[in-house]
Amino acid sequence: MATGAIHDPAPTRGARRRAQTRARLIEAGRTLFARQGVDATAIAEITEQADVGFGSFYNHFSSKEEIVDVVVSESLEAQGRIVDEITAHLSDPAEVVAVAHRYFVMKSRSDPILGWLLVRLDVSHRVMTRALGERARRDLDRGIASGRFEVADADVAFLDTAGALLLVMRAVLDGDLGADADRRHAEGLLRILGLTGADAQAVAERPLPPVDSPRDATLEP
Amino acid sequence: MATGAIHDPAPTRGARRRAQTRARLIEAGRTLFARQGVDATAIAEITEQADVGFGSFYNHFSSKEEIVDVVVSESLEAQGRIVDEITAHLSDPAEVVAVAHRYFVMKSRSDPILGWLLVRLDVSHRVMTRALGERARRDLDRGIASGRFEVADADVAFLDTAGALLLVMRAVLDGDLGADADRRHAEGLLRILGLTGADAQAVAERPLPPVDSPRDATLEP
Repeated sequence: MATGAIHDPAPTRGARRRAQTRARLIEAGRTLFARQGVDATAIAEITEQADVGFGSFYNHFSSKEEIVDVVVSESLEAQGRIVDEITAHLSDPAEVVAVAHRYFVMKSRSDPILGWLLVRLDVSHRVMTRALGERARRDLDRGIASGRFEVADADVAFLDTAGALLLVMRAVLDGDLGADADRRHAEGLLRILGLTGADAQAVAERPLPPVDSPRDATLEP
Repeated sequence: MATGAIHDPAPTRGARRRAQTRARLIEAGRTLFARQGVDATAIAEITEQADVGFGSFYNHFSSKEEIVDVVVSESLEAQGRIVDEITAHLSDPAEVVAVAHRYFVMKSRSDPILGWLLVRLDVSHRVMTRALGERARRDLDRGIASGRFEVADADVAFLDTAGALLLVMRAVLDGDLGADADRRHAEGLLRILGLTGADAQAVAERPLPPVDSPRDATLEP
């Protein structure tokens, strides 16, 4: 937006060090939030784990909430890109949405650390409106534009499907749902989007596209 | 469950005082959480507002979270009873569920304090499985037993509808949805439960039963 800026100059040594410190803090935060939860993690533990001085934290983040937000946003962006890849070749908008939702339900089982971060609604509401929310909304709008989806109000339909996903993920994290939770949830969400029961079931039962990323190998059914 | 206990003896003076102090703390908590939010409320403020000594708090609650839980549970129990009353004469299970969901969406608009307490997922997940969750599950099971609802998995359908409601309430609290959000959400949830689009729309558009309680007069459409 700055009209005078053509491109960034090469970063100075100070700027590079600053970026490295920030990256170390984020990685330390991710590790600690994963291991012991957000609430139990003190800023001093993050700086200790990152091997930087306590005061440096505040050169990069104003609060623990801010680094939580960054960790979650970066994770979501990475997950969003994976889902984009595995759904790229699908021509049915209903299948795209079903696969995306099934991915996150199954991910809650295979990567509970990410799952727990996502279902903390105070955090997830903000991030939902960013990385994942934009993608989900794009997929929803495509289906509406093509006539595959039929909803009275796209905003409410978006929230209905996102909220349903969050609570199903939460129940998977609690160990309360069986192995077919992803398909049963996909069926329900496709009904919200106007598919008949039989159509929703058929799309929800389609085999998942392969997930190439090795770290997501646990998602294979 | 205590086999020897026929009935409770008349409470002693000490027990009555204890109950009064507890009630004062709960009322103070409700007022303060409503006015300034849970996070901004210190235990010392609750005891000050209740006009009891700071230490007394811990005779009744082990932590702030515990009193939050009690305040929310009592509010939910009261709301659950209101919804039971206004839906008691309805014969269509679909209308019962639609009215209950519409009530909570509209309530988020008319009573944002209650709304915010409910959508704090860390709290609401626990309470959802109690007062409101039991009622919602009962209504869902009735509709399934009568053949009005048709779902592949009742547990997942329950979570889909509850999660959808929470996120719609959250958006209403943020001022992001229009006045028909309750009807549009009811339509989506009835689709999850197997109603066709036209049927879901018709049920969601039915006039709400009158809400007698004066404090809920603001819910009238």
